[in-house]
Parts: sequence; C-alpha cells; structure tokens
Amino acid sequence: MPKVDIEAIPQTNATGYPATYASAVSGRLYRRLAPPSGLTEFGASHVVLKPGAWSSQRHWHEDEDEIVIMLSGEAILVENDGRHTMRSGDVAVFPKGVENGHVLINESDHDCVFIAIGRPAASDCHYPDIDMHLFNGTGFRKKDGSPF
Amino acid sequence: MPKVDIEAIPQTNATGYPATYASAVSGRLYRRLAPPSGLTEFGASHVVLKPGAWSSQRHWHEDEDEIVIMLSGEAILVENDGRHTMRSGDVAVFPKGVENGHVLINESDHDCVFIAIGRPAASDCHYPDIDMHLFNGTGFRKKDGSPF
Repeated sequence: MPKVDIEAIPQTNATGYPATYASAVSGRLYRRLAPPSGLTEFGASHVVLKPGAWSSQRHWHEDEDEIVIMLSGEAILVENDGRHTMRSGDVAVFPKGVENGHVLINESDHDCVFIAIGRPAASDCHYPDIDMHLFNGTGFRKKDGSPF
Repeated sequence: MPKVDIEAIPQTNATGYPATYASAVSGRLYRRLAPPSGLTEFGASHVVLKPGAWSSQRHWHEDEDEIVIMLSGEAILVENDGRHTMRSGDVAVFPKGVENGHVLINESDHDCVFIAIGRPAASDCHYPDIDMHLFNGTGFRKKDGSPF
C-alpha cells in the first residue's frame, strides 16, 4: 500500500567504500525505500545518522540530482560555502554537475533522521577531500584510476 | 547554496483545475523548490495544507512516480485501500501506472506540511471520483475529452 511501513524494511550500514574511508559511515543506518515500494524513477533512502556519523564522504555527482529532507534531530551540512545546521523541515538540494561537495555530519548527541532522494543512475562521483573517485561502471578507485 | 531558503520562495495556491473542482485545493499552499534550486530530474514541492484542504483531487499518474514525506501536522491519506493517518516522518509512495487514486486531506485543526516529489514529465492523470481527466498535452478535460 502507498503508506510505507518503514520499520518493516531492513536497515543496513553497508557501504561500497574501501576500508580506508568506510569508518566515517559506519553509524549511517539506511533503508532503501524504492525497491520494495515499486518506485523506479528515483531512489529514496530513509537514513538514521548515529552521533558522530557521516552521511557519506563529501562528494558531488556528475549526473545525479539529489535532495535531502530533514525529519528529526540535527546535522551539519558541510559544503564549499561552509557549515549549515539542518533541522526538522529543512531541505537541501544538490543539482547534478555542480562541483560542490557535500556531506551531512551528526555532531550532536542524538540520532538524526532524514530522507535522501536521487536518480538511480550510475555516474561518476567526485570526492574533493580524499584520494577516491567513483568511476561509472568501474566503482571506487583512487583518483588516478588505480584500485585500492 | 544547497540549503534551501524555503521562506524566500514564493508560495501560491494556484491550480489548473477547472472551477468545479478547484475549491478543494484552495487551502493548498505550495512552493516549487526545483526551479530556483537547479534540480531538473524531478520536481519537489513544499506544501502547507490548511485545515480542510486537499492536496489534490484523488488521482493517479500513468507515467510519474511520486513520493510524499510528512514534516509536521497530520493528514489523512485516502486511497483504494482506505484511510491512513500520516504524521511527521511518515512516507507514502505512488509508483507510476498503479491504478490507486490518492489524496491527502487535512481534517485536523492545524496546518500540516509535507514535501512531494515527482518526475516533472507530462503524462495522463486519472481522477477516479470525478468527471475529469488530465490528457497529456491537452490539459484538463472531462473524461470523454470534452472541455469544461
């Protein structure tokens, strides 16, 4: 039915990041909402960030629009222009191809919860702060293309 | 910048519905987030439903996925399977082509707020409860194709 039974969807902290960069997202617990609900035109994740957790490594996508909608708690949005506090009801958008790496970091003592939506297409993803790049079709490599 | 200044975006209750069916959505105040923020792969609306307001006429899209994320207040999601209360943190999904008309109705005494996201493509939209149909490229007509 249309109303999503969020608790019934398995929650995971799985990541494709290489071990060097994975610990930042170990407290990122997410549920993929689209596959069980039949959405195909965009992906949607329900994300809980435990205290200290990052939503990702700071990144921007070449060809994938993203939007984040804060539901509860507090996170710091870090991007090229600085740090911005995000609370319930706040929205942030990341149009594809805009070279502005972004990440949400939970610096509070409580969980924060948000919904993240993006187009489920593969495209290159850039990580300005670390020696990692997501190559379309190849996966995570160092910026020179060599494997981890 | 990525964090959206929601208050700075103009709010409207405009509708393309013919007068016969427009009053239900007169208390639906929305802001289109995508155009000012640069998103192109999906549309995103910040919606305030005043007490008594409907989010739309009950409808389903042939070729447009939709997702609704409740931010505050309470609304009743009405669809083929009945009535479901939606509150902060609840999510509902409406995959394209699923013949399940849906609408959110604010039956409470307070505003409710949600984000609605869908693909900004034109496609036919069906209204099971009323003699109206959205024809792709033609706009709102009666079900037999005649104009209002």
